[in-house]
Amino acid sequence: MATESVTVRPAGSEDAGHVARLLHDFNTEYSEPTPPLEALAERCRELLVGGEIHVLLAGEPPFGLALLRFRPSLWSGGPDTYLEELYVAPARRGAGAGRALLAGTIELARANGSEHLDVTTAEADTAAIGLYESFGMVNRERGPDGPLMLYYELEI
Amino acid sequence: MATESVTVRPAGSEDAGHVARLLHDFNTEYSEPTPPLEALAERCRELLVGGEIHVLLAGEPPFGLALLRFRPSLWSGGPDTYLEELYVAPARRGAGAGRALLAGTIELARANGSEHLDVTTAEADTAAIGLYESFGMVNRERGPDGPLMLYYELEI
Repeated sequence: MATESVTVRPAGSEDAGHVARLLHDFNTEYSEPTPPLEALAERCRELLVGGEIHVLLAGEPPFGLALLRFRPSLWSGGPDTYLEELYVAPARRGAGAGRALLAGTIELARANGSEHLDVTTAEADTAAIGLYESFGMVNRERGPDGPLMLYYELEI
Repeated sequence: MATESVTVRPAGSEDAGHVARLLHDFNTEYSEPTPPLEALAERCRELLVGGEIHVLLAGEPPFGLALLRFRPSLWSGGPDTYLEELYVAPARRGAGAGRALLAGTIELARANGSEHLDVTTAEADTAAIGLYESFGMVNRERGPDGPLMLYYELEI
């Protein structure tokens, strides 16, 4: 399988520049605002050092990332896991990097005692939806015929 | 307006029992699993003391809550705000408590320097959707004609 050729590893604080570059490319590709690269790298470094974010990198030099947060769960003893960002550079898509990053995310979440993973996406992102559903992720409440689960946001 | 009669206040650690009772009622109403009440109260107390969760309570004795998390944002200097739970006891619905709790949430988020609030819901929860949209919350990417934003989860 193509996924076997993609190496995924945890990012250390020394990878903050790679993390920032990939996040910057992500937002630029989708015309979302992003801070200047150096400021973003410094913020990523602080968040990595503080354990606020956990990042998996795909490839060397990295061309994809998964960025996770753990939050102490209300409902179980372990943390809930939020997959906040999942990105693969356009030229490297379709070769299993997203799949390897999501598999690594689930492995890391389990290793941290997490029983719940969540992520948001847009209905237009059929590649992401196909990936999530292939791992058994669901966006319907209480079974496959239940109502869609929606994500709302507000800039305040 | 009905909302003026609903008092909203921040929960302290001494309110952990109220918080747990409301969360327990919430999950019981929607047939979701919930830990025993005493264990949930102890967990809520720890999370309140540790600043992991912030809770607003409506009414006295409390009959509604908003439960928030702040996470240091990747994109701005302040935290992003996640409204994880919003609940009003069935007998008290329709009298502005949800509105007062969401207004309080936005006020608290702003006071903490947050520029972004997010929440998930199900398309069947028309009361919640009406409330969120009345505050300008959006679940479409890049404008009102953009694709729906979806929430996916996985039990791992």
